[in-house]
Amino acid sequence: MHALVYHGPGKPSWESHRRPKLESAQDAIVRITTSTICGSDLHILKGDVPTVTEGRILGHEGIGVVDELGSAVSGFRKGDKVIISCITACGKCDFCRKQMYSHCRNGGWVLGNTIDGTQAEYVRIPFADTSLYALPAGAEEEAAVMLSDILPTGFECGVLKGGVKPGDTVAVVGAGPVGLAALMTSQFYLPAAIISIDLDDNRLKVAQSFGATAVVNSADGNAVKRVMELTHGEGVDVAIEAVGLPATFDICQGILAAGGHLANIGVHGKPVTLHMEKLWDRNMTLTTRLCDTVTTPMLLKTLEAGKLHPGKLVTHRFALNDILKAYDTFGHAAKYAALKVALQVR
Amino acid sequence: MHALVYHGPGKPSWESHRRPKLESAQDAIVRITTSTICGSDLHILKGDVPTVTEGRILGHEGIGVVDELGSAVSGFRKGDKVIISCITACGKCDFCRKQMYSHCRNGGWVLGNTIDGTQAEYVRIPFADTSLYALPAGAEEEAAVMLSDILPTGFECGVLKGGVKPGDTVAVVGAGPVGLAALMTSQFYLPAAIISIDLDDNRLKVAQSFGATAVVNSADGNAVKRVMELTHGEGVDVAIEAVGLPATFDICQGILAAGGHLANIGVHGKPVTLHMEKLWDRNMTLTTRLCDTVTTPMLLKTLEAGKLHPGKLVTHRFALNDILKAYDTFGHAAKYAALKVALQVR
Amino acid sequence: MHALVYHGPGKPSWESHRRPKLESAQDAIVRITTSTICGSDLHILKGDVPTVTEGRILGHEGIGVVDELGSAVSGFRKGDKVIISCITACGKCDFCRKQMYSHCRNGGWVLGNTIDGTQAEYVRIPFADTSLYALPAGAEEEAAVMLSDILPTGFECGVLKGGVKPGDTVAVVGAGPVGLAALMTSQFYLPAAIISIDLDDNRLKVAQSFGATAVVNSADGNAVKRVMELTHGEGVDVAIEAVGLPATFDICQGILAAGGHLANIGVHGKPVTLHMEKLWDRNMTLTTRLCDTVTTPMLLKTLEAGKLHPGKLVTHRFALNDILKAYDTFGHAAKYAALKVALQVR
Amino acid sequence: MHALVYHGPGKPSWESHRRPKLESAQDAIVRITTSTICGSDLHILKGDVPTVTEGRILGHEGIGVVDELGSAVSGFRKGDKVIISCITACGKCDFCRKQMYSHCRNGGWVLGNTIDGTQAEYVRIPFADTSLYALPAGAEEEAAVMLSDILPTGFECGVLKGGVKPGDTVAVVGAGPVGLAALMTSQFYLPAAIISIDLDDNRLKVAQSFGATAVVNSADGNAVKRVMELTHGEGVDVAIEAVGLPATFDICQGILAAGGHLANIGVHGKPVTLHMEKLWDRNMTLTTRLCDTVTTPMLLKTLEAGKLHPGKLVTHRFALNDILKAYDTFGHAAKYAALKVALQVR
Repeated sequence: MHALVYHGPGKPSWESHRRPKLESAQDAIVRITTSTICGSDLHILKGDVPTVTEGRILGHEGIGVVDELGSAVSGFRKGDKVIISCITACGKCDFCRKQMYSHCRNGGWVLGNTIDGTQAEYVRIPFADTSLYALPAGAEEEAAVMLSDILPTGFECGVLKGGVKPGDTVAVVGAGPVGLAALMTSQFYLPAAIISIDLDDNRLKVAQSFGATAVVNSADGNAVKRVMELTHGEGVDVAIEAVGLPATFDICQGILAAGGHLANIGVHGKPVTLHMEKLWDRNMTLTTRLCDTVTTPMLLKTLEAGKLHPGKLVTHRFALNDILKAYDTFGHAAKYAALKVALQVR
Repeated sequence: MHALVYHGPGKPSWESHRRPKLESAQDAIVRITTSTICGSDLHILKGDVPTVTEGRILGHEGIGVVDELGSAVSGFRKGDKVIISCITACGKCDFCRKQMYSHCRNGGWVLGNTIDGTQAEYVRIPFADTSLYALPAGAEEEAAVMLSDILPTGFECGVLKGGVKPGDTVAVVGAGPVGLAALMTSQFYLPAAIISIDLDDNRLKVAQSFGATAVVNSADGNAVKRVMELTHGEGVDVAIEAVGLPATFDICQGILAAGGHLANIGVHGKPVTLHMEKLWDRNMTLTTRLCDTVTTPMLLKTLEAGKLHPGKLVTHRFALNDILKAYDTFGHAAKYAALKVALQVR
Repeated sequence: MHALVYHGPGKPSWESHRRPKLESAQDAIVRITTSTICGSDLHILKGDVPTVTEGRILGHEGIGVVDELGSAVSGFRKGDKVIISCITACGKCDFCRKQMYSHCRNGGWVLGNTIDGTQAEYVRIPFADTSLYALPAGAEEEAAVMLSDILPTGFECGVLKGGVKPGDTVAVVGAGPVGLAALMTSQFYLPAAIISIDLDDNRLKVAQSFGATAVVNSADGNAVKRVMELTHGEGVDVAIEAVGLPATFDICQGILAAGGHLANIGVHGKPVTLHMEKLWDRNMTLTTRLCDTVTTPMLLKTLEAGKLHPGKLVTHRFALNDILKAYDTFGHAAKYAALKVALQVR
Repeated sequence: MHALVYHGPGKPSWESHRRPKLESAQDAIVRITTSTICGSDLHILKGDVPTVTEGRILGHEGIGVVDELGSAVSGFRKGDKVIISCITACGKCDFCRKQMYSHCRNGGWVLGNTIDGTQAEYVRIPFADTSLYALPAGAEEEAAVMLSDILPTGFECGVLKGGVKPGDTVAVVGAGPVGLAALMTSQFYLPAAIISIDLDDNRLKVAQSFGATAVVNSADGNAVKRVMELTHGEGVDVAIEAVGLPATFDICQGILAAGGHLANIGVHGKPVTLHMEKLWDRNMTLTTRLCDTVTTPMLLKTLEAGKLHPGKLVTHRFALNDILKAYDTFGHAAKYAALKVALQVR
């Protein structure tokens, strides 16, 4: 088969690779039909993720067809169409039993990280019964592949941890794919206002089409002031950080209402300065979370019910074997006005 | 009457002062029978709290007897023994109606701050119906005065915000009065282990007598390492910060288990460095809170039921008119092995 | 002034009555501009509500203009447009402080019950600061008057108590005004399916226009069977009872999924048979609630944000002094295809 | 081996039986070292549980040693001491993934019901990884066997579902083993008062030794009146039904405070009359639950920490092969003042 193999920083290669085999009775082998690229794949290619070693097949998102099954897998049959979760969950350890699959002692984020991933023609999925989900009949693959990672990430880390409630004022800092996933799913709880904040006017326009009721371009350094004006000096009930930089984190802590929630989604590479001298008496809640994918079954129900339209996040489509071109487009998102790219096998 | 008046940094004075009068139909005048001193009173005397101006009577804790009542007060009668809440709540504003009395638009922490306080023979209490609590028959005053501030502060900001649950491992950083109040009330939820962390071996001994199952002296800089050993490398479910310094905050963020809660109680004067590069994927919750005193009725029930013994926090007793001596003792807590001081009017 | 006065079962009268006066410093006198009729007013007229005595002015819903204010009212001024809450809350008692205004020791449901109500040109509102809400600028009165009772009732007793979550399957038994209010506000939480159940095909058609994804006419006694088919034998996550009869309660208990919630809104006059022999192991939650109106501020935000359209519930409009005609229409709702009637003073 | 086999109503037999064998890769065979008898075993012997067919080995509680393991079991090794959960959980189905193991699509309550149970020298446990728990080092077996069923049942169905909070007034109707387990674990949350209600003065005396602050003998039919007096007319915050009869259920609904919780544990054979004509406006919550055993890991932590003493529930001890004698004692609990019996293999 062919796969996208990491050969060190800046060196991805679409090349021939041996097909994965079952290694445990709980494994499945899935033939990929749709995959996509995540922001963290770009981080890996920059060499920022030391757990990824040379020779690794990248990718942790995908849709496919079950090709082989270990003897202990009971929930799927050969030929089933499945969504691959970015998080592998054994279903047995203490963390899995608290629904913190992200910290599964035998899994977690392993695909395209410590084991071979989904940017390939075939992939091995450990603990298939608790790491795969049946694709609902009639679901579009390029919409459904957003449920591998980006939708549960935006929803769980941003919306659920942020405790978005009807009538709330929500700010989402960052209008990239994850920020837009949070923006989209925050509407599950009918906030009264959603303010999208980004540096890129094009993305802010997209945010409006996704439901933002106000937008703020933070390029001039006045985002905090602007949000405070928009909220009549009260600040926001929920600030969702979907970038991962000290500057965007700062905006979030600057706009929190008393009693507000700061829900971090962004992957941070550096410490931030937390203004406890101002926040200690603000009844604030600050959360972090690695996506647990525990809401995937619920998201699938809303998708099936026609109430969620994640396909809107896909701006570009490529054949899987044109993946290097897809990386180029996704890696220059502003230039190409790209959100998510769909990688298709026909 | 006499009162403890602030005349600028380092200049408290026990002096003659005119008696307070009713200013609104919702006010009560309370004759103080027991008062006490809070750590924040020491901060005020250092000049650290700019909202406190010269001429202000200090103190926000106290027990007393209702002496006069405004015409709109319906819950109390002249002669009733009452506990004065450190937080004044109008009961009408949006924050009060969300049970965030600390941010009451017409009250909050005002006693001994922006209006005259309880270290006096008489005090005016605005919004008496929602800021006073009837002293249960038979309750000891020096125990009950701990419910003015320190018990609800430790419980609400530390234990409730920290989400302590049966079976949890809890760490309380700081074994001063507020830390001990958190330690004491964390036992409402039957944690399996409570680790007390402080610089002072005497206070750690006290912490053990209050229910700590392990103690760590952090003087050697190895507290994080020690807690990780005690928890077999897992960290704690709940870390309660009861000091208010970057160093103690650091210990808390260093010992959090995946999924853990960091509940800040300490009053911080400076920013802290938050290690988001390590915490972003830890499913952490960090909270701040100014005591709302919404649990005071519940704490009174546990006190009445004989299940809470806050009198143990009182180490020294003074007549109210010896308050300057009491300040000296409380201000040199380590030297005198002091926790809380009771100021009594006989 | 004129008012609708109850003179015993079946004897309402629109007649001249002396204007209400301030009786306490916390009262307001409100000049009614819009009122409406509730199903419970019909119960009163049948003589079913023994707390209502002869001579009582009926009505507990209304919009109006503040005409006079007691001296202790601080949140409103003469001339303010206000929404009158069906529940009077003192804001001070233990129940109010737990946000159970319905059980306020000094209020609760008193308007048009134990004190004179809103089907009059003027009404006295006790505890005005905590029982009135400012009408948002630009809000339509006939939409906003739905927030006096029916919207918070459907939302709090049905949707919140039922714990509706994204992806849920919800059934609402009863498509009268309260059932429709529950149906409308259940969509705040993006359920995947909402099944409306009623005896009247016209109301079921209305339910579909309000967002029901399926409808079941229960006239043939097969509603339970039909819902179980629609849910592939699983039952519903939330069953909302919005009628108040043993037969409709029975449907609810018959269609609950394991782990399901039965949220009762209906006013029951008789006991029901609860099938504990089937339900004891179903992990069921059954709730009752008298509307607390604690969500009125949130509902107002969603109304202002243009995300709630309760005006759709109004099918007929009358001048206030034509109220007897309005009662006739509302009392023969099926005949006139009536939901709520608006009573207007021009 | 020998086992207690059901040969129809009234016909248990301790007899020779073939040893169980592994049937799936996820099974374990456990050699029993301690077992016990449950109230539901008595129901089975009366013929009340139609799912139990002739030839079935009874029992769903036990401690033992892992004797054999299927190839897919990863959490245990041969020789490990384990607690057998009364609920078998596959860990994979939708119910297991919502922590409703009781409704597991591939398990649930099957032991001693639809598959052979634990009143035997050996037992086969399906889905061993998610249905067994490691016995903590040093734990006493007769204490730990209470965690197979009775402790999680009392805690989950009574205390957790009832939402017991610090300061609450709790009533537990029924002072048999399950009621006492609820009484014991309700103290995890520091209620101010716990009223135990039963027909048997001896059991009420035991209840006091377990922490009841008041007791009511309901034999005279005045239990409701008595509880209302004890609670100054307010009723209880939480009423836990631990019997399963209409009469005891009636007591519970008669003593609920406004806003109260009725948490049913009892196994009901008949419908009950629910007084919705009184309860519809009481803001009541009524719950049912079959034990999910999701709190077993937490209960083990409290046991290990020395904060839970379930061994107190054991009043009689027998050798496993004297099980018929043990049934006689347990079946005549009042006569023998029996609570739980321990069945031991030496």
